[in-house]
Amino acid sequence: MYSPLIQKLISIFAKFPTVGPRTAARFVFYLLKLSKEEINEITQSISTLKEKVKFCSFCFQPFEGEEELCEICRNPKRDKSLLCVIEKETDLVPLEKTHKYQGRYFILGGTVAKLKQEDIKNLRTEELLKRAENPEIQEIIIATNPTTEGESTVLYLERILKPLNKKITRLGRGLPVGSELEYADEETLGSALEGRK
Amino acid sequence: MYSPLIQKLISIFAKFPTVGPRTAARFVFYLLKLSKEEINEITQSISTLKEKVKFCSFCFQPFEGEEELCEICRNPKRDKSLLCVIEKETDLVPLEKTHKYQGRYFILGGTVAKLKQEDIKNLRTEELLKRAENPEIQEIIIATNPTTEGESTVLYLERILKPLNKKITRLGRGLPVGSELEYADEETLGSALEGRK
Amino acid sequence: MYSPLIQKLISIFAKFPTVGPRTAARFVFYLLKLSKEEINEITQSISTLKEKVKFCSFCFQPFEGEEELCEICRNPKRDKSLLCVIEKETDLVPLEKTHKYQGRYFILGGTVAKLKQEDIKNLRTEELLKRAENPEIQEIIIATNPTTEGESTVLYLERILKPLNKKITRLGRGLPVGSELEYADEETLGSALEGRK
Amino acid sequence: MYSPLIQKLISIFAKFPTVGPRTAARFVFYLLKLSKEEINEITQSISTLKEKVKFCSFCFQPFEGEEELCEICRNPKRDKSLLCVIEKETDLVPLEKTHKYQGRYFILGGTVAKLKQEDIKNLRTEELLKRAENPEIQEIIIATNPTTEGESTVLYLERILKPLNKKITRLGRGLPVGSELEYADEETLGSALEGRK
Repeated sequence: MYSPLIQKLISIFAKFPTVGPRTAARFVFYLLKLSKEEINEITQSISTLKEKVKFCSFCFQPFEGEEELCEICRNPKRDKSLLCVIEKETDLVPLEKTHKYQGRYFILGGTVAKLKQEDIKNLRTEELLKRAENPEIQEIIIATNPTTEGESTVLYLERILKPLNKKITRLGRGLPVGSELEYADEETLGSALEGRK
Repeated sequence: MYSPLIQKLISIFAKFPTVGPRTAARFVFYLLKLSKEEINEITQSISTLKEKVKFCSFCFQPFEGEEELCEICRNPKRDKSLLCVIEKETDLVPLEKTHKYQGRYFILGGTVAKLKQEDIKNLRTEELLKRAENPEIQEIIIATNPTTEGESTVLYLERILKPLNKKITRLGRGLPVGSELEYADEETLGSALEGRK
Repeated sequence: MYSPLIQKLISIFAKFPTVGPRTAARFVFYLLKLSKEEINEITQSISTLKEKVKFCSFCFQPFEGEEELCEICRNPKRDKSLLCVIEKETDLVPLEKTHKYQGRYFILGGTVAKLKQEDIKNLRTEELLKRAENPEIQEIIIATNPTTEGESTVLYLERILKPLNKKITRLGRGLPVGSELEYADEETLGSALEGRK
Repeated sequence: MYSPLIQKLISIFAKFPTVGPRTAARFVFYLLKLSKEEINEITQSISTLKEKVKFCSFCFQPFEGEEELCEICRNPKRDKSLLCVIEKETDLVPLEKTHKYQGRYFILGGTVAKLKQEDIKNLRTEELLKRAENPEIQEIIIATNPTTEGESTVLYLERILKPLNKKITRLGRGLPVGSELEYADEETLGSALEGRK
């Protein structure tokens, strides 16, 4: 229904995470209303991103700069004995915002559903093993989501990390703020009972 | 719009928890379709409930029988060193279903918002103190909801139970099953980090 | 988990429309907190309902009184040329609240899904035919829900009413107040276009 | 928390319609995973869009080509006596999908809330008036959303179009497909009654 160029850009935006064709169309009509300068700023920013942003050689967090390591990994105040394994880049911010974690991170790059080989290939497990072998690391916190995928990822990582004989932990389960005991599932409530303090 | 008797019964049902006038009307039309026998069964059951059901003299759980104590409280296998304080009757079932708690309960009868005097009067705090004083009780688990009301109730109960010098705990906070780290609030995620294991 | 009487009343309430076992349990604990007088009022109202309330001999709306006809049906100001067929009792109130309809109603008692014989048996189709045959009735408005069930009921009623050679209408489709054109389904939007004015 | 380039692109995406900072961050991490070629395709498509796509000189629908008019406006089969005024570009597709409208469109460019002068300035009212004056146009369908803003836009447009002495209509209101009469608002149900057929 739309002209080819518009249709093509709708298809491109429809591949962005969380975006469907309807929202993609709204993106295109939004762009059409911008000035030439604003459009240039957008395309420039996207191009430069790819050129200038690289991935931290330790944790794989994207950052820009001459250094090999991102800001967190080269911060001497971070506790080098702790390594927090997260699924994806956007899981880092909420953990930092708690101000309760002072160690380093490692971005795994995904999860393993039902231990499928193709899922496993996409994870940075070799790199994780290399980081984890370092004697300065004493505890590996597997901070995957408490979902089925997250859980099978924990099981998989525990298995491959076991030979290192290090402390392996996962995030505590329990009742979230604002929830109601009456509507909690048995597993969550059981964890909340066991984790009482 | 409805005739007086129907209107009256709608008002009665609209006072039931979670029921609004529209649902109350549906209840009345449901009743109108039942047979005389079914109606008798309902009214009989409601009347008998009030006559036969009494409240456990220890935990205030409603039950029927000749005994003073409910089934849980008179069960010799339950751990008498633990007392779990809950807000209301319906909070007991989910805790029992976890099969992770073997102590006894105490139904507080509500919560305290902003330490209002009238809220406090409605709680069974005197009875709780009497139960808690018993030397066989070693730990009091305050299992209120992790909401603002639940939290201020914890603070209030901790204050009045403090002189007893007993272990006072609350349910652990953390990530519930099926949730996503990226959307967890800071407090919940902080608790999940601290409660890692 | 609950004692037999409580459990029985939970089962009874769980059969009420929209009520699940958890809400049913809350109803029982609500009743347990009421005084003997309040309980008596409830059981009395339920019993009297069954005794005193009867169904209008024309429209089947429940009402109380010595008359054969409900208040609407015996109101001389209502337009006797119009008959509005509704699925159930609770559909009458919203139609009356529009103040746009001055005719009489007929409560069909349900819908027909896929023209199943057992569904058809539960409807008051014979009674409807008798009312509709009356020469004073000039238009029959089939006000079923615009759902699949409601639509197949319209088709069924149109078929059996056709021999009467009367005007048969249904509620107009279109955009509801507060909706957005962009999210309207094609059928609704097509009706809105055709019904423009 | 993110590096400047990432942060800048997050701000840019956060201005896209329906996008918040969290989704904007996911867009950036999505882009970081694409190949150089894929990035080039995206930036090229965005730049070309601005260069090649122009607005139809009649209806303001964006399109590409050498012509002055978009495909719909230059289609000789479209009914030139009808003009459908829509709020925004994305409202055109659902109307076309109904296959119930064969006239032309006019994209107003927004709505007027409370007849604010600054809202009015952003609308293409002068252009609308010019189009509407053309004697070949016999009916103007104001197809704004049935919301408060849409309604006050109808009132405003009716006022300025009145001197032309043409038929001015709006989309019909009524029950949408799949809805339930019992939960319809009075205005919608009233319209459904009046628009019965």
